[in-house]
Amino acid sequence: MNDITMKLNADELIKMALREDISSEDVTTNSVMPTAQAGEVELICKQDGVICGMEVYERVFKLLDENTEVEKFVADGDKVKKGQLMAKVKGDIRVLLSGERVALNYLQRMSGIATYTNEVAGLLKGSKTVLLDTRKTTPNMRIFEKYAVKCGGGQNHRYNLSDGILLKDNHIGAAGSITKAIEMAKAYAPFVRKIEIETETLEQVKEAVEAGADIIMLDNMDVATMKEAVKIIDGRAKTECSGNVTKENINNIIDSGVDYVSSGALTHSAPILDISMKNLHAI
Amino acid sequence: MNDITMKLNADELIKMALREDISSEDVTTNSVMPTAQAGEVELICKQDGVICGMEVYERVFKLLDENTEVEKFVADGDKVKKGQLMAKVKGDIRVLLSGERVALNYLQRMSGIATYTNEVAGLLKGSKTVLLDTRKTTPNMRIFEKYAVKCGGGQNHRYNLSDGILLKDNHIGAAGSITKAIEMAKAYAPFVRKIEIETETLEQVKEAVEAGADIIMLDNMDVATMKEAVKIIDGRAKTECSGNVTKENINNIIDSGVDYVSSGALTHSAPILDISMKNLHAI
Amino acid sequence: MNDITMKLNADELIKMALREDISSEDVTTNSVMPTAQAGEVELICKQDGVICGMEVYERVFKLLDENTEVEKFVADGDKVKKGQLMAKVKGDIRVLLSGERVALNYLQRMSGIATYTNEVAGLLKGSKTVLLDTRKTTPNMRIFEKYAVKCGGGQNHRYNLSDGILLKDNHIGAAGSITKAIEMAKAYAPFVRKIEIETETLEQVKEAVEAGADIIMLDNMDVATMKEAVKIIDGRAKTECSGNVTKENINNIIDSGVDYVSSGALTHSAPILDISMKNLHAI
Amino acid sequence: MNDITMKLNADELIKMALREDISSEDVTTNSVMPTAQAGEVELICKQDGVICGMEVYERVFKLLDENTEVEKFVADGDKVKKGQLMAKVKGDIRVLLSGERVALNYLQRMSGIATYTNEVAGLLKGSKTVLLDTRKTTPNMRIFEKYAVKCGGGQNHRYNLSDGILLKDNHIGAAGSITKAIEMAKAYAPFVRKIEIETETLEQVKEAVEAGADIIMLDNMDVATMKEAVKIIDGRAKTECSGNVTKENINNIIDSGVDYVSSGALTHSAPILDISMKNLHAI
Amino acid sequence: MNDITMKLNADELIKMALREDISSEDVTTNSVMPTAQAGEVELICKQDGVICGMEVYERVFKLLDENTEVEKFVADGDKVKKGQLMAKVKGDIRVLLSGERVALNYLQRMSGIATYTNEVAGLLKGSKTVLLDTRKTTPNMRIFEKYAVKCGGGQNHRYNLSDGILLKDNHIGAAGSITKAIEMAKAYAPFVRKIEIETETLEQVKEAVEAGADIIMLDNMDVATMKEAVKIIDGRAKTECSGNVTKENINNIIDSGVDYVSSGALTHSAPILDISMKNLHAI
Amino acid sequence: MNDITMKLNADELIKMALREDISSEDVTTNSVMPTAQAGEVELICKQDGVICGMEVYERVFKLLDENTEVEKFVADGDKVKKGQLMAKVKGDIRVLLSGERVALNYLQRMSGIATYTNEVAGLLKGSKTVLLDTRKTTPNMRIFEKYAVKCGGGQNHRYNLSDGILLKDNHIGAAGSITKAIEMAKAYAPFVRKIEIETETLEQVKEAVEAGADIIMLDNMDVATMKEAVKIIDGRAKTECSGNVTKENINNIIDSGVDYVSSGALTHSAPILDISMKNLHAI
Repeated sequence: MNDITMKLNADELIKMALREDISSEDVTTNSVMPTAQAGEVELICKQDGVICGMEVYERVFKLLDENTEVEKFVADGDKVKKGQLMAKVKGDIRVLLSGERVALNYLQRMSGIATYTNEVAGLLKGSKTVLLDTRKTTPNMRIFEKYAVKCGGGQNHRYNLSDGILLKDNHIGAAGSITKAIEMAKAYAPFVRKIEIETETLEQVKEAVEAGADIIMLDNMDVATMKEAVKIIDGRAKTECSGNVTKENINNIIDSGVDYVSSGALTHSAPILDISMKNLHAI
Repeated sequence: MNDITMKLNADELIKMALREDISSEDVTTNSVMPTAQAGEVELICKQDGVICGMEVYERVFKLLDENTEVEKFVADGDKVKKGQLMAKVKGDIRVLLSGERVALNYLQRMSGIATYTNEVAGLLKGSKTVLLDTRKTTPNMRIFEKYAVKCGGGQNHRYNLSDGILLKDNHIGAAGSITKAIEMAKAYAPFVRKIEIETETLEQVKEAVEAGADIIMLDNMDVATMKEAVKIIDGRAKTECSGNVTKENINNIIDSGVDYVSSGALTHSAPILDISMKNLHAI
Repeated sequence: MNDITMKLNADELIKMALREDISSEDVTTNSVMPTAQAGEVELICKQDGVICGMEVYERVFKLLDENTEVEKFVADGDKVKKGQLMAKVKGDIRVLLSGERVALNYLQRMSGIATYTNEVAGLLKGSKTVLLDTRKTTPNMRIFEKYAVKCGGGQNHRYNLSDGILLKDNHIGAAGSITKAIEMAKAYAPFVRKIEIETETLEQVKEAVEAGADIIMLDNMDVATMKEAVKIIDGRAKTECSGNVTKENINNIIDSGVDYVSSGALTHSAPILDISMKNLHAI
Repeated sequence: MNDITMKLNADELIKMALREDISSEDVTTNSVMPTAQAGEVELICKQDGVICGMEVYERVFKLLDENTEVEKFVADGDKVKKGQLMAKVKGDIRVLLSGERVALNYLQRMSGIATYTNEVAGLLKGSKTVLLDTRKTTPNMRIFEKYAVKCGGGQNHRYNLSDGILLKDNHIGAAGSITKAIEMAKAYAPFVRKIEIETETLEQVKEAVEAGADIIMLDNMDVATMKEAVKIIDGRAKTECSGNVTKENINNIIDSGVDYVSSGALTHSAPILDISMKNLHAI
Repeated sequence: MNDITMKLNADELIKMALREDISSEDVTTNSVMPTAQAGEVELICKQDGVICGMEVYERVFKLLDENTEVEKFVADGDKVKKGQLMAKVKGDIRVLLSGERVALNYLQRMSGIATYTNEVAGLLKGSKTVLLDTRKTTPNMRIFEKYAVKCGGGQNHRYNLSDGILLKDNHIGAAGSITKAIEMAKAYAPFVRKIEIETETLEQVKEAVEAGADIIMLDNMDVATMKEAVKIIDGRAKTECSGNVTKENINNIIDSGVDYVSSGALTHSAPILDISMKNLHAI
Repeated sequence: MNDITMKLNADELIKMALREDISSEDVTTNSVMPTAQAGEVELICKQDGVICGMEVYERVFKLLDENTEVEKFVADGDKVKKGQLMAKVKGDIRVLLSGERVALNYLQRMSGIATYTNEVAGLLKGSKTVLLDTRKTTPNMRIFEKYAVKCGGGQNHRYNLSDGILLKDNHIGAAGSITKAIEMAKAYAPFVRKIEIETETLEQVKEAVEAGADIIMLDNMDVATMKEAVKIIDGRAKTECSGNVTKENINNIIDSGVDYVSSGALTHSAPILDISMKNLHAI
């Protein structure tokens, strides 16, 4: 994760997470360790997967004590194996203990998303179809979760409601027609936005492509219809299949020739990757 | 969720989540709906489960527009069925569209945790063993996730590092011994705190109970050892089994006679419960 | 300005502006008015122009006292005349006095930008060339200033560095070539972004259009070169002329056939529109 | 700008301005520069003027990366010439690119105000009349704009409603009379405040000076009346002429013998000073 | 306390104080009261004194639940007697219980300061000497404590370092002389500020008055010297005696003829006024 | 005070206190010291007492300028004598002057509480009764004041409403009975909480101990009743005497055999310890 993004957009969230876990003080640690004591601890992977969040992990400790040193042996996006030593952290043992949980909560979740994304992206390998995330992220975790999707091999859809246009059925209804909706979006939105529109029938696909949509979402279409839609569009717009990609239907989706397939599960239902801190000792 | 908790501790997080999704404006909605238009939408469950987060869901819309009305047909902790109508939301359609994703992101995740907790708690039914959560929550989601665990039938372990004492091996090492660690914690911590300590051997269990620990965590012990530990403690302290509760080992854990079993998976790996907003129409 | 945008993205800035002006209390008003007194005041235009910021103006008083009533006779984007009564504000006189300066500081600046934008946009009337703003906005005023540009008849360029791609010479240098830069941006950025690239020569224009740029900025080109560039591009990408549009050169720019012309002066150098509050009286 | 003021009162505003421009990440820069690369860029003046904001300019980059080095060749308040090299900035090129716009937005605006103030102050040169600013500043920019007025050769009027007393017609009306208003202000306000009062007639001037006003504002008076007012006051209070100082009327204002003349245009209508960053290159 | 001050400057502090006391939820109240229940409680004075903070007291409950009703029988500045019923509070009992401590913490402290100030101000009664507070306030309590001093009959010295000039020995040393220090302050500070300077000898007093100081602080002078100083100054500046006013020395201070006497003890050492909430009952 | 607590929980409060005192700039210091000048100042105790807040004192200056050096000769909890040199502070004189008041405001108040607590704790010396604080702290000062109580020799009661259970008469009323209240609290609260309950009669004491209360508060009981209560409880719960401990009644309280006595006065009515900064000189 880029340093600027970390400072401007992640730091405040990380500090909030630390304050969530330490609302007055770490009573346990302060009970038994009245003064600083130098120590070292190891970061060990307990499952195979794709790692993500190493800078965030480091940042948690740095925000508690800038003198903490994190020696990293893996980088975001790397595949890791169960038992692998991923980093050593050196610093005041009180900092290592007080920051452990928050640091792991970020690292495990981000790695879980990267790992799961990587599996799904693997199913698309060899095809031209690209895997996308959605806005179905955990509240106040988007900056971390969208980054994790990229580390896992997916690509990001729009970041939020402010930086992408996606005209859904209700927007179309409000505008009056697909043509009118696209026209209004082009008139209103910053001109650097692509216009995406949701379609459910081939009639709608035709209207959308005529009206100059940049991206056409094929919503709940069967494979035959999707193929037909792709043929109608004929390269004049990008196509996105929004739906549940599974091992079973993946080849059909690829066959349909859509450019993108988006999956909310990447961020809303990936289990964590198990990682722990071990062998803390004074130095 | 209690109104005071909502105002003091949840509102700021919800507003941040809304700003995460709307960093300048909802460009799509504003393109096609320059003025307010009254509408109504239905909240429909798409999977069986335990619902949690109805007040948070409502609050998202109220924070965007206090005139939005949410008529709720289910309450937190209720079991819901696929296809069930859970609520109707009435208000400016722009508010319904702009708030939809954040509202669902909270509701789906909280309900996912409640549902998963409910399943695990079901396995403990009939025994005296109580299911606990951990601090393995998503950063900046703890207030929501710990509440979801309670709605699902679990009980909460300490909220954070400031409101509970848990002396782990490193704390014991720093203090010198189990006895010394408990003594230091009693001297330092607010006197309303119970003292919990982690043990790995029966020797440690004995020392802990003699030293006056209120709660003894039995860490990574096999069932036979746990049984022996429970016998040694003999009601002089509460016991917590920290570890992976699964369908396979659940009966053994119950048999061991421990008072509590804690599970990180409740909050870190529960998949969401699928819920959607449907049938938006002008009124 | 949309209510949601106001609540989520403008309110905090307005409150900060109020605290900037009232760091402890309005000493003057509190000296002479120990208790509330109902009053009314008129908002009068003192120059011809295009009004912008009426909701923001109202919001300042509402944030001080939600019972303040603002009766508006003009809407954002309307042309106003010197001496025109634009609104009446009713409420506690202390609120009217304490909020006056901040309310006017927003309204005058936003109206100044709308008025100036309107003049420049007028020069483009009849042509297909569209007027754009830039990121040369006043710090912490962008949400207000970009909106004012739209009210004045301009269109918005990207909102910020996070929601638009603009590959400048240094980005191209870092990537190695125009082709490589466009390729990297397509691989990295959310797929809903258009890719804009800056060019200075016809060679670069050719490379950019071949590489699939969505928008090509023609930087510091004379009119003849711009015409040639537009011909080369031939509709395969949008074109933006970045430079100083003046009454003198405007016809030449239009003649060149570029789609867009952007101007930093709209936001960084527009003088305010003079507006004042008059005839405050008790009621 | 003093370091303490910068840390306590400017830093948060600058960080907000950076987040306004980078709400998630600088997508363009991150696309083409995945890793840090040392570089240097020059800060060049493109117009003659008075420079202001060099520390703020530097601070923008330091807040992104504390290792950025800014070698300054001019100081706030210095006169600069078109083409002059004002500073060199060394650091990670990504930082230089991502911070450029915000840094310049501050520097150009502050320098624009200093330049314009300097011109107006020049008109008063040789007289005893001092140029003052007003509270007509851009929201959330006051700390920067009032400082720029001082760098340009003006003096500051009150900072805000909390640190200065200015009894206007409505305050006088509420109190009952000029005498009563001054009395109430003296009784209520911290005793270190001077009491300023607005007058429109010579009768009012007489009453104000008798009642012990420290500063008397002469509002909308013609020069002859102002002269008479100054004679009546006879040094017992300071005098402020509030109104439009122009090249045409400046000598008349000076002749009237008032101590101060205040001008809102200094902060609300000064155009920016054109400054740019050039010749970025890797080092 | 004025409503605007409350909203802009006190609300955030009160909410922080509430979050300090409720970092996740009021566990006790939520344990036994799962749903709202209407109730009423009485606010009773347990000591004679001067009341201050009634609006702040009310605001605490309103911020938790805007439907809470506070019927007030006394106003800030009123004298109250032990046993006196001061207010009745009606609302959800959970709100009454959860807000009680924070509401009383403000009310008791503010009333303690008002009561103590009132006693000291009483000692000055009949003389022309006015009692002042200082900046020796509790961190993050100044807005409340300075207001309490006024309610108790004292007057406020400068609010903070930004709104008043007080040249102490170190400032004089840095400037070179008293004369030079006053000159520099007049040149630098907003012209609405009075210039106060600290003096320790009659020589310094003479220099200060010649140099045009508005207020002269007589620091650690005995009464005879103070008298002499007042004679030297002869009305050309205000005089402030900074020091420990006690029952014993009060008459001497008055006799010296100084205009003001300031006391840090008003805010830093006043004991609270005992007040409690009684007779809570369901309604 | 632990570094982590300082960074996460104290820093923001200290910065707010600094901004409370410097809302725009330190006008006096900036008037006479346009540039940095190295200096040193001494921290001198002016009364005998127990010192507390040395790290907070240091932190104030470090937050203004991280290069400030504070050489400390005493540590929190140390007894200090009138006239004792406690520290030397070296740095930019402007930082020393601008930070002085806030630094002392914290140090004097925290030392005042530590000193007063120490006196009261002295009265309990030799007995088994432990002195406790309460939640009667100054708003937004709890983290500092509770720490000061510990430095003075007291122990902390619960930190806030979220981390301790204390069932008072109204909670008992809502639950229906003491037994029911304790049962509900055990069911609801995190299991690491001890359950404390308030009792007024021996009947209530009996019910509380039977119901399994961990701590029983003896409220407003005379000494004879307290003795009887302690006898009834017989070690099955801890006992807390909530009430006014004075030199007169202290022996009676001790004789009653209660485990704890709590006192609100420790934090709400301790006078400050007088401390000053002297002998500032350039170096």
